[in-house]
Amino acid sequence: MATHSLFLLPGDGIGTEIMVEVEKLIAWTNAEGLTDFSTESGLAGGAAYDAHGVAITDEDVAKAKAADAVIFGAVGGPKWDNVPYEHRPEAALLRLRKELAVFANLRPAICYPALAEASSLKRELVEGLDILIVRELTGGVYFGEPKTITDLGDGQKRAVDTQVYETYEIDRIARVAFDLARTRGGKVHSADKKNVMKSGVLWDEVVKGVGKDYPDVALHHILADNAAMQLVRTPKQFDVMVTDNLFGDILSDVAAMLTGSLGMLPSASLGAPDPVTGKRKAFYEPVHGSAPDIAGKGIANPIAMIASFAMALRYSFGMIELATRVEDAISAVLSDGLRTGDIAQANCKTVGTEEMGAAILAKL
Amino acid sequence: MATHSLFLLPGDGIGTEIMVEVEKLIAWTNAEGLTDFSTESGLAGGAAYDAHGVAITDEDVAKAKAADAVIFGAVGGPKWDNVPYEHRPEAALLRLRKELAVFANLRPAICYPALAEASSLKRELVEGLDILIVRELTGGVYFGEPKTITDLGDGQKRAVDTQVYETYEIDRIARVAFDLARTRGGKVHSADKKNVMKSGVLWDEVVKGVGKDYPDVALHHILADNAAMQLVRTPKQFDVMVTDNLFGDILSDVAAMLTGSLGMLPSASLGAPDPVTGKRKAFYEPVHGSAPDIAGKGIANPIAMIASFAMALRYSFGMIELATRVEDAISAVLSDGLRTGDIAQANCKTVGTEEMGAAILAKL
Ligand SMILES: CC(C)[C@H](C(=O)O)[C@@H](O)C(=O)O
Ligand SMILES: CC(C)[C@H](C(=O)O)[C@@H](O)C(=O)O
Repeated sequence: MATHSLFLLPGDGIGTEIMVEVEKLIAWTNAEGLTDFSTESGLAGGAAYDAHGVAITDEDVAKAKAADAVIFGAVGGPKWDNVPYEHRPEAALLRLRKELAVFANLRPAICYPALAEASSLKRELVEGLDILIVRELTGGVYFGEPKTITDLGDGQKRAVDTQVYETYEIDRIARVAFDLARTRGGKVHSADKKNVMKSGVLWDEVVKGVGKDYPDVALHHILADNAAMQLVRTPKQFDVMVTDNLFGDILSDVAAMLTGSLGMLPSASLGAPDPVTGKRKAFYEPVHGSAPDIAGKGIANPIAMIASFAMALRYSFGMIELATRVEDAISAVLSDGLRTGDIAQANCKTVGTEEMGAAILAKL
Repeated sequence: MATHSLFLLPGDGIGTEIMVEVEKLIAWTNAEGLTDFSTESGLAGGAAYDAHGVAITDEDVAKAKAADAVIFGAVGGPKWDNVPYEHRPEAALLRLRKELAVFANLRPAICYPALAEASSLKRELVEGLDILIVRELTGGVYFGEPKTITDLGDGQKRAVDTQVYETYEIDRIARVAFDLARTRGGKVHSADKKNVMKSGVLWDEVVKGVGKDYPDVALHHILADNAAMQLVRTPKQFDVMVTDNLFGDILSDVAAMLTGSLGMLPSASLGAPDPVTGKRKAFYEPVHGSAPDIAGKGIANPIAMIASFAMALRYSFGMIELATRVEDAISAVLSDGLRTGDIAQANCKTVGTEEMGAAILAKL
């Protein structure tokens, strides 16, 4: 029996194409004896809806829960714009996050030196940028109840969503942020709207309390709207930013876009360590979406997907050295001037998904 | 009796300094016979708390409601960081918005040509930028109930905020956006998180319905997280963006920051037209805050405040020509190379608040 099990959910659009490159990488690390992964694949999003009429089957959720790590591509596309709400492709993602209880979403926003020019920001503002957004992923307005649309008659409806946070949820995500800050720049910004939201008041209170256990980490409070502004103005002032599910959704996208490296950015979503085994449930996915407009053309950028696999090596399996080798291989092919279409540059060679995957593998 | 009444609420920090420049402008337009404004001033935010122990008194709220337009500076500062939650400076703003029922917040994000270089974005991406964010201002998670923190015992608390939208609230803000788009680029982006929020589902449904009444305006749906990204990537793709209170808070700040002209940007908040008189309650304020760090030094930039007054001339009093004259005067002093410290530039002359105000007045 293999030592570690991976459950692959390529999803829709370019998800399936970029996952192929990860599968090749896994085959290689296994063949080299560097890893001993068993893999199994399932369907998520539109692909699952087409096959089974749901965004993900109970069987596949069970497999995701049983696996040591889930590697996820991307879901969604215009084809499924009109499926019933509870079966829309995103529902797969939300269900998996909740059932795996992967509350800590780590979204590094790194500016690859070779790509600084691709940012819409001035080069000097983003060169060397390395921010880590720590987003709470299983609470807040994404999951709070009530979450309803009520018909009031006379053509009027009322829609309600509920933002709920309890102390323990804020406490545990704050600890993840502080622990990570210790391994990096030693600075945490906590973003909320405590001037308007009660959940923001509690958020700030709990984060400040946790901060007392980390006297070596500098803690700064920032309002979420100001955080969005400051990310655009002087992003390098940030090291780790911890925030709730909804603000994290937006702020991590802003941070990702700043880098000019959107097609390059991975993410990891981690659960609490098991009290007995110490293992965390874990879910890895690129920050970008399913890009239906370029799907099926063999031109998608597989780097974020491969970097997500590298995060799995690092966070789920403690294979720091191998993770770093993969990340260095990515940097190396970029330095060699290889680019997929999304990051095409003058004086660089534009290649397809397969060729990029192969080039990274060759560097290893 | 004067024809029109203005209620001035300078607030805190630089609010008081920049309001002085507007008062000079009003004195001048009155003296020239261009306007016939009566003015009265009140206290808001920390200033009101220090004087009366509340963020704004009932008397001042009543005066704001009775006036033809409210001109607001900015509130807040570290001095009031620890006042009771219901009396924090922001409470004045929230109470005024709600009681005046100024549901339509217009936030133009314009890049002044003279300042394109001040943007953190590359010049070509922001030069000529002219976006109008139309933010719903009296609903959503800002005001929805329940909004509570409950003690659960054992050191645990639960915080709840409620996002509520009804059809009529979305309908009326959408109409404002479509009406304005007709006078501009003819394009509306509606931003929500309908993939996660029921309020987003209703938002999109209602906006699309209203859109049928405006076949001449192009309507695009965009997810709020993607909107934040696209604002950073290629802001000029947008004309009018309509969105809810919370997303509007963040997205309008991003848009404002892009322009490099933050200290220059005004905003208008409008109510529904009175069924009899057709008059709208209206509230004008700069997009920037009270900047406690530079308050009292006479160096604050009064342009956003003066431009907010120009918006009042335009939207509350139909004085389009005079509004344009004020706006042109602002552009002219910038072209002359006059700058306050926040927008200081090589080869330009840095001046203080008073000198900037006087220079704009001189152009008139
Ligand atoms: C697809 C969507 C449900 C999701 C989210 O809102 O969390 C996505 O935007 C993300 O950030 O992973
Ligand atoms: C001060 C604060 C309550 C306010 C808001 O959140 O609406 C501010 O950020 C704004 O955008 O006007």
